[in-house]
Amino acid sequence: MTTMRAVQQQVHAKEDYDAFLAVCPSRQLLDRISNKWVVLILCALGGASPQTGASEGPRTMRYSELSRLLAGVSQKMLTQTLRSLERDGLLTRTVTPTVPVTVSYRLTDLGLSLHHLTREIRNWAQAHMGEVLAHRDDYDAVAS
Amino acid sequence: MTTMRAVQQQVHAKEDYDAFLAVCPSRQLLDRISNKWVVLILCALGGASPQTGASEGPRTMRYSELSRLLAGVSQKMLTQTLRSLERDGLLTRTVTPTVPVTVSYRLTDLGLSLHHLTREIRNWAQAHMGEVLAHRDDYDAVAS
Repeated sequence: MTTMRAVQQQVHAKEDYDAFLAVCPSRQLLDRISNKWVVLILCALGGASPQTGASEGPRTMRYSELSRLLAGVSQKMLTQTLRSLERDGLLTRTVTPTVPVTVSYRLTDLGLSLHHLTREIRNWAQAHMGEVLAHRDDYDAVAS
Repeated sequence: MTTMRAVQQQVHAKEDYDAFLAVCPSRQLLDRISNKWVVLILCALGGASPQTGASEGPRTMRYSELSRLLAGVSQKMLTQTLRSLERDGLLTRTVTPTVPVTVSYRLTDLGLSLHHLTREIRNWAQAHMGEVLAHRDDYDAVAS
């Protein structure tokens, strides 16, 4: 199994990925990670403070905690997004046989490496919101 | 007009934005910039090399050039995305009265600041594609 996987990785690594190409798998991966729920889940599990964006280190979170923190996410969307992130190797899902059962999530090293980037996107959106709103006011004033 | 805008910016800047909140404008901005077409348009205008991701500096591109480079984008989607980026102050649109008319786009300083972040997201997707594919193979082998 390990050997098989190592071989697969080698094969995959030999290709050149280019997200500008519609048929490239990295285009589809870019599409998946360019998603506000992915960004917010990675921010939450990466331990980024909601206000300052500073990282307090990765943490394990229960499904219910994530659901509460990500205001407005539907259960279906949250479940689907978590499953795809698990499948891509960005987080691990642990089921603890309590009553009721506890399901918790934690970033892998791969997920953490992406978190460092998406955290900056979230911070950018929060930091430049005022500037963007002013630009919209100007644009709409000229257009109307 | 300038004074008005300066006042607006101050008012906006005084608020604390938190993208975890469904009602926060930064949630909607995060949604807009977390989009593969936005990432690819910023990469193109920021001059990031498709293969290495290294920046060759910002450049002015015609609509037709962008349309060709972003394989698979529909004309409607490209037009809408460019318009929202212009409205948000991330790029400028210049119309030159040639026959036929030439429309070209260039990143503003604000757009360039976001480009530096989204470029890394694109590079991450291309660099870790092999690893992600291997994880998917493992996940699907266990699930089936």
